Order: sequence, then structure tokens, then C-alpha cells
Amino acid sequence: MSSNYRNFRNNVPWLILFLEAVFVVLFYFLFSHGDESRSTVSYAAFQDVNHMVIFGFGFFLTFLKRYGFSSTGFNLLIVVLGVQCSVLIENLFYFLLEIPHEDGLKRITKAAVSITAVVISTGAVLGKTNPVQLILMTVVEIIVFHMSRWINRMYLQVPDDVGMMHVHLFGAYFGLAVSSCFPEPSPRSEKNASTPKSALLSMLGTLFLWVFWPSFNSVLSEDKKWEVTYNTYFALAVSAVTAFTFSAMTTKDGKFRMAHIHSAVLAGGVAVGYAANRIRYPWIAMILGLLASVITVLGSYCLQRCLNPALEIHDSSGVHFTFGFPAVLGALAQVVLLVAENGTFLTSLGYSVMFHIGAFCVTISMALITGLITG
Amino acid sequence: MSSNYRNFRNNVPWLILFLEAVFVVLFYFLFSHGDESRSTVSYAAFQDVNHMVIFGFGFFLTFLKRYGFSSTGFNLLIVVLGVQCSVLIENLFYFLLEIPHEDGLKRITKAAVSITAVVISTGAVLGKTNPVQLILMTVVEIIVFHMSRWINRMYLQVPDDVGMMHVHLFGAYFGLAVSSCFPEPSPRSEKNASTPKSALLSMLGTLFLWVFWPSFNSVLSEDKKWEVTYNTYFALAVSAVTAFTFSAMTTKDGKFRMAHIHSAVLAGGVAVGYAANRIRYPWIAMILGLLASVITVLGSYCLQRCLNPALEIHDSSGVHFTFGFPAVLGALAQVVLLVAENGTFLTSLGYSVMFHIGAFCVTISMALITGLITG
Amino acid sequence: MSSNYRNFRNNVPWLILFLEAVFVVLFYFLFSHGDESRSTVSYAAFQDVNHMVIFGFGFFLTFLKRYGFSSTGFNLLIVVLGVQCSVLIENLFYFLLEIPHEDGLKRITKAAVSITAVVISTGAVLGKTNPVQLILMTVVEIIVFHMSRWINRMYLQVPDDVGMMHVHLFGAYFGLAVSSCFPEPSPRSEKNASTPKSALLSMLGTLFLWVFWPSFNSVLSEDKKWEVTYNTYFALAVSAVTAFTFSAMTTKDGKFRMAHIHSAVLAGGVAVGYAANRIRYPWIAMILGLLASVITVLGSYCLQRCLNPALEIHDSSGVHFTFGFPAVLGALAQVVLLVAENGTFLTSLGYSVMFHIGAFCVTISMALITGLITG
Repeated sequence: MSSNYRNFRNNVPWLILFLEAVFVVLFYFLFSHGDESRSTVSYAAFQDVNHMVIFGFGFFLTFLKRYGFSSTGFNLLIVVLGVQCSVLIENLFYFLLEIPHEDGLKRITKAAVSITAVVISTGAVLGKTNPVQLILMTVVEIIVFHMSRWINRMYLQVPDDVGMMHVHLFGAYFGLAVSSCFPEPSPRSEKNASTPKSALLSMLGTLFLWVFWPSFNSVLSEDKKWEVTYNTYFALAVSAVTAFTFSAMTTKDGKFRMAHIHSAVLAGGVAVGYAANRIRYPWIAMILGLLASVITVLGSYCLQRCLNPALEIHDSSGVHFTFGFPAVLGALAQVVLLVAENGTFLTSLGYSVMFHIGAFCVTISMALITGLITG
Repeated sequence: MSSNYRNFRNNVPWLILFLEAVFVVLFYFLFSHGDESRSTVSYAAFQDVNHMVIFGFGFFLTFLKRYGFSSTGFNLLIVVLGVQCSVLIENLFYFLLEIPHEDGLKRITKAAVSITAVVISTGAVLGKTNPVQLILMTVVEIIVFHMSRWINRMYLQVPDDVGMMHVHLFGAYFGLAVSSCFPEPSPRSEKNASTPKSALLSMLGTLFLWVFWPSFNSVLSEDKKWEVTYNTYFALAVSAVTAFTFSAMTTKDGKFRMAHIHSAVLAGGVAVGYAANRIRYPWIAMILGLLASVITVLGSYCLQRCLNPALEIHDSSGVHFTFGFPAVLGALAQVVLLVAENGTFLTSLGYSVMFHIGAFCVTISMALITGLITG
Repeated sequence: MSSNYRNFRNNVPWLILFLEAVFVVLFYFLFSHGDESRSTVSYAAFQDVNHMVIFGFGFFLTFLKRYGFSSTGFNLLIVVLGVQCSVLIENLFYFLLEIPHEDGLKRITKAAVSITAVVISTGAVLGKTNPVQLILMTVVEIIVFHMSRWINRMYLQVPDDVGMMHVHLFGAYFGLAVSSCFPEPSPRSEKNASTPKSALLSMLGTLFLWVFWPSFNSVLSEDKKWEVTYNTYFALAVSAVTAFTFSAMTTKDGKFRMAHIHSAVLAGGVAVGYAANRIRYPWIAMILGLLASVITVLGSYCLQRCLNPALEIHDSSGVHFTFGFPAVLGALAQVVLLVAENGTFLTSLGYSVMFHIGAFCVTISMALITGLITG
């Protein structure tokens, strides 16, 4: 077993080098002509997303004792591999389908948003996989995510910026499916312990994510950019308030617990992502933020006590309730808002549900296959 | 006493929930029509202010031992409550006075700038209040601040972007007035101690504030945006140099002390805020930064030794000399610059002094009333 | 010796005050007329560079045990002094040569980019100099750097934005030359030790630099802004991947070492800086990033074992391989790209080599003179 493990470790650099060589060769063939168009993505917003993916998620996942700053470094590795992979696949689709190319800045921004799915999945399997498995998972997940996005776009007429918001849903359930293929680590395991200091670093990551979430939601929307920012800000604000309230209610001494705040603060941002460009009044965003936060806190209780032992899912970072539940709520809210706005067009309702189910099915099935391959 | 305290703690979530419900209902009635105008505030500058309020002030106040990262969390709660409250009150004024509405991004930016007053006040009362009192103080202070701003605008013709710069003055003296109503904690109290590690975190917060201060000063100015940035940058630079100089001079071994740098580095930014759009040559900003920094360092000596014991004011974070004194200096400098520029128009001189005294009176009187209510 | 040292320390505040007074007086004479033009530098990009210089380099140099957060503070002092000095000298040149003035924001941005040279040099002499020496070095280096930049511009027709990219080359070799004039500290010295915690802070600084490097490279380029960003991003991504690969290969247990990643992750950004606006396909940037990273890792091995003992150079932070080697590679790549693009124009080739040698000679000779003066 020990030599087997060493074998795994020795494969890491060769695997990475091989991937990188493939990327450079593909870049050579796919990006052989320069493009001169101006970007529709603001440079500041791109930097915010970049900042958020590297710092926010880097620290967000540091709450386990053994995954301190080295998790931040490993997060960087996954992000840079994933971004290159994502740019390539996106371009391959454009190439195969003969669609005009997008400008460079938008390309990297889209890749940085897509990689969020992988980072969320990583949260679910943290402490159970080795680096080789994680890197393979990154590549497979990016490919599958782009496929599901293109199915949504081609057959279900989902606009590209809304389709991109499926990252949270996809990431959470992909991660859970992979996680369920691995044996649960023994409860006494050191790997799963959390220290006060690592909880604090994790809180820092949460704050980073909180601050940059409006950029994340608005960066790809073509029009109504500031409305998306505005709605996301209010949803996040109400989420934060609700998270503090429930945290103080559920603990006996009335103090705030970081673990609750950690997961519930961001719920509003996730939930509002789907429908932010449709919401016309801030109070709708606020109520959505409130509901998302409540669902996350309740979900964290129910899942950890009842559902997870029953389904034998072990979810290291609680991505199920942090990103999965609010994303489901957000997708529901989008359907409800569509219905409320357009009356009862059966077609639009039907397509939304179909689209939702489609994304869901692809996610779960692909995730299970990947889990078996990497397992 | 203990049951009383527990009672207080148990009220926290219900108080927050009640506030949040009121906010949602008010948002429903006040923001019932969508607005479509484009924003005059740049998205990058808004993000900078947001970043600064959450991270900068969050860490700036972590220098007391017991208020580590949890202070950062509590800071987030106060900010999100205050921003919602501020947006509502601002809109209520617009609604009552039948002024055309502003766009959404400017609205949140203004609210984020206003909330700075509350965060500064929080620094003065840290360690003496319980959460219920802090939350009530937040709501009351935001309301009073907007009232004083509207009095300045309606009766004293102060432009909105200059009036906004009163946040530091208002925040510091409001906090001091509230602080004077509370009994001074015993000097042996653990709550007031500072550790090297917390001092370092506080330094980190100071650096955040230093980097983002030019954005803070320039975000709301309609024109001359880059001049404000430019002047603020030089004032901050000279402040920093002066802070290091005096810190090395006043300590016996010639080493730099973080506590001195902590407070004096930002003085230039506060002082230049009032007049930044009037300053035409960088050397004026530089001298202002120098003076502000000197006043802060001297103030920190005088206040802690003579004045505070005499007036029975206990100022946990030194907001009096960090924000109060430079703000007074900045207001004075504004008057001096006005006089130097326009010759000796008695009216403009009179109105500036009146305006200054007006803001001052409102602050102190309101602060004392609030202190009695929350006490 | 002890009284001598105390003497040095006591001189620090007076030296700083004197410098600051000279700066204010010079600002008074040089900036006596306001300029009204609009800026060509985006505010967000300026903030990124500012953020990067204060936070990124501040933390990047904290890896020695004794230079923890206080290094961050001292970094701030050097940056603010250097920026003022740089703005003055730049303006003096414009004044003497009667060239029309640039706008304020561009002026500070250029100064913030120039100061990078000083910060890199500081890395090489860290632990061997006292504050007086460091401050003198800052002023001398800024003057010499601007002189070399003007020689390049006037006699070698180097565009200003490309000439600015010499900061890394200049900073690294200036620092090494100064460093070689000081006696090597004893190997047992505590000053040179690194702790896990400080290595982690240093990693944090590296991440800051990594995220903001595209802004740094693109902020001064007049046109092709996004192409520079795009190429820099890919060069950095491949650098990061290569750094992880080689780190895992060279250690026996296959784990990632922070020290390797620390230096190699940024190599791509440094190397691509010279030619980023000439690179038309991302795969060229990617290969450049790969080469730069390999050179850095190999350089770190060779230098620490063979070359440094032979040349009696002691390089505290490894700036030679972190910034020096990739900069040399970048300059070479620029020449190669020029040749590949324009065919074999002997003039362009000749001028590039001349320009390179010129900058190099000025750097080394000036650095030795400075070393003798400060030594």
C-alpha cells in the first residue's frame, strides 16, 4: 500500500507535464489566428473574478487542519490547469460549430467562472482523494460541464450567461457523486478535524467570496449589468443578516458560530445568480436571500443528522447545503419568476423544467461514471 | 446580572429578524418602480469601497485581544444592516422631497460610504457594549447622520459629495459621546488588552484602508475624479512618511511602533477628504498630510495622558485622534482654502463656519441622547 | 559598535524628515501649474498595481523570521518615499527636456511600477543593511533607474512602456551588486532563518503578485492592452503548472515545496513582460512561461550550490533566480521574436542588443558605486 501510494505520488509531476504538453500543442493548433475585437468584459470585473477564484475559494477550503495554506497552493494548481482546459474546450466547440470567436478577455473570464464548479467539487472530496485523482477529476469535470452547457444552449435555448450560473449546481452534485464512491474516512481521522485557526482562515475566504460575489454574478451578463450587481448585493446582505440570526438562535449561549455563518452567508448570492437579471425590485432579491439562507441552515442540520448517514454520502466541506440547496432554490425561483412574469405560457415553463432536469441528469450520471473511473 | 445578560443575548436574533422584516417591507413600498438610468459611479470604485469597508475596517478594529476575527464577522453584520438602513432612509428623503431618484449602484455606494461613520463609532465603544446596543446604535446613527447631511444640504447648500466626507467627523464624535455614557471598564480588564498578533492583524487592516482610501475619497465626486485621487494619494504618502518619522523619534530605541503608525498613516486621507477637489497643486495636499499626521501623533499623547481622564471619556480604539482630529483639521483647511481662493467673501466664510458648527452641534447633541437611550 | 548602531538608528527620523522636506519644496517648484488632461490609465489598473506593490511585495519578503509584518510596514515606507522621488525625477526630466507633461494618474502609476525595482533590490540585501542604508539605496536606485530609462529612451529609441519592463532586470542586478559589497552574515545567524509561518505569509504575497501581474504588465501599454493581459495570464498559468511539477519531481517524497513554487510561479510573468505586446498567439507566451519557470528552478539549484559561494554573492531572497534570470530570458525572447518577425534586419537586431547591453552596464556599474557609498 505504501509503495502503491509512492507510485501515485511519483506520477503526479509526469501527469501534470503531459497535460501541459497536450494543452500547448492544442493551443498551437486551435489559436493559430489572432483576433482583434474589443472586449465586452470590463477588466476590473475580470480581475475581481480572478481574485475571488484564487483567494476566496483558496481560503474557503482551508478549514480542515491538514489542508492549511497548502490547500491554497493546490487550489492554484487546479485553477490554472482547469482554466487552460476550459479555454481549449470552449474554443473547440466554437471551432467545430463554426461560430465566430470571442475576444480573449471574455474567454479567460468564462474559463475562470467555469472552474468554480471544479473548486466546489473539490470541497466535497477533500481528504479522500490523492492529487492524481483530483487532477483527473478537474479535467473530466471541465469537459462534462462544458458538454452539459452546450446541450443546454443548443437544445434548450438557454442563454449563455444564465447557463453559466449552473456552475454551483453542477459543482455541488458532481462532487457529491464522486464523494459517494469513496469509502467514508474513519471518524477518528485527523484529516477531518478543524481547528479554530483554520476556521478563521476559512472565514477570511468567505469574506473574500462575499465581497466579490456581485462581480461574479454580473461579469458575463451582456446587459443589465448593474441590476444584477444591485440585486446580488441585497440578496447577499439579507443572507448575511439571516445567517447571523439563525446562528445566534440555534446555539445555546446565543453566540455566533463561524461554521453556520460560513455556509449561510453566501447562499443568497448563489440563489440569486440564476434570476438576477429578471428581478426588477430589490425586495424580491431580499426575500430570495432570506429563503436561501434559511434553507442552508436547516439543510446543514438535517443533512448532517439524517440524510448523509442514510445515503452514505460524506461531504467534507458541506458543499451540498452551501452550494447545492441554494442553487436548486435559485433554479426554482427562476421558474416561478418566469411564470409570474409571462403568465402561464406552458412552453416556457416546460422548457425551464426540462432544462433543469436535463442539467441535473447529465450531472449525476456523468459524476457517477467519473467516480468509478477515478475510484 | 447573569440572567439579565442572557436575556440580552437571547434578544439579539429577534431584534435582527424584526429589523430585517421592517427593511423588506419598507423596500417593498419604497422601491416599487424600476429605474433604468445608467450609473455615474464606476463599478471598480464601488468594489474598492465595498472591499475597504468589509476588510479594512474589519481588521482595523481587531487589535483588542478578545475581538479577533469575530470582530470581522460582527463588522459584516453591522455593515449589511447599516447599508440597507441607509439606502432606505436616503430613498425616503428622495421620496418625501420629490427629487428624481438616483441609480442603484450610486445608492449602494453612498450607503457604503455612510456606514463608515457607524464603523468608526463602533471603534470608540468596543468592549463596553453588547450586541443589542451596537445594533440599535447602528440604526440610530445612520438615521441621525442622514438627517444632519440633509440639513447641511438643504439649508447650508453643501454639495452632496463634500457633505458625505463628514462621515469621519460624525462617526468619531458620535462614538465618543456614546462612549462617555458608559462606565469606564476597569484597567485590569482583559477586554482592553492588545496582543502582538492582534496588532499585526490591525496593521493589515490599516494597509487595506491605506490602499483603498483614494477610491473612498474620489468615488462620489462628480467631476475632478482623478485630481481627488491624485491629491489623496500624496497626502497619504506624506502621512505615512511622517508617521514613521515620529514613531521612530518618540520611542527610545528608535524602532517603529505599530500603534503610532496604525493611527497616523491614515490621517492625511481623512484630512484631505474635505478639500481634495479644491486642491490644485500636490504640495498643498502633502503639507495637509504632514500636518494631519503630526496632529494625530501629538493628539494621541495629549489625549491619553491629560484630556481623557479629565473628561472621563474612554476611547477604546483611539478614534478621537485617528479620525476626529484629522477631520477637524480637514474642515479647517477647507475654510482656509476657500478664503485663499475667493479672497475675503464674508458670505462664503460665514456659511462654511456655520455649516461646520451645524454639523458639529447636531452630532454631539444627538449622540448624547442616543447614549442615554441605549445606556 | 553599539553606540554607533544607536547613532544610525537616531539618524533615521531626521533623514526621513529631511528627504520629505526636500520633496515638498521640489514639488512646490516643479508642479506649480495645474494640468487638466484626461488620463489614459484606467483607474482599476492603477489600483491593482498599487495593491500589488503594497500587499504583494510586502508579504513576498516576509519569509525571514525576523522580518515578519514589520517588513510589510517598512515596505510601505520605502514605497511612499520612492514614489514621491520617482514622480519628482520623472517630472524633472520632462521639465528639462521641455516635453509636454503627462496626467497625474499616469504619473503615479509609472512611479508605482518603477518602485518595483527598489523593492526587488531590497529583497537581495534584506538582513544585511540598516534602515538608513535602505532609505539611501531607495533614493539612489530610483535616480539611477530613471537615468538608465532615459538613456534607453533618448539614444536607443526604446518605447517608454517597454523600457519600464526593465524594472525586474535592473532591480535584481542592482540588489545583487549592493549585496556583494556587504559581508556575508554568519550561517548560524538567526536573521536568515525561515519559519513555516513566515513561509506561508510569503506564499500569500506570491498569490497577490500572481493575481495582479497581468495588471502590472498591461497598465502602461498604450494599445493592445488586453493582448498583454491575455498573454501574461497564460504565461503565468503555465509557469505555475511547471513550478508545481518541478517541485514535486525534485523532492524525494513527491510533495510540493513552497520555496520552489514561491520563486518559479512568477517567472512567466516577468519573462513575458518585455514582449507581451508582440506575442500574437498564446502558445508562444505559454512556452515562454514554461522556459522561464524551468530556468528559475534550475537556477535556484545551481546558484545556491556553485555560483554564489564562488562569486561571494549572498542573495537573501533569491532575487537573482526569481527576477534576474526570467528577465534576461524575457529580453532574449524579445530579440528572438523581433528577428523572427522582421526577418534579419541587422539594425533592429543590433539596436536591441545594444539597448540590452547598455541597460546592463549602467545597472552593474552604478550598483557597485552605490554599494561602496552606502557600505
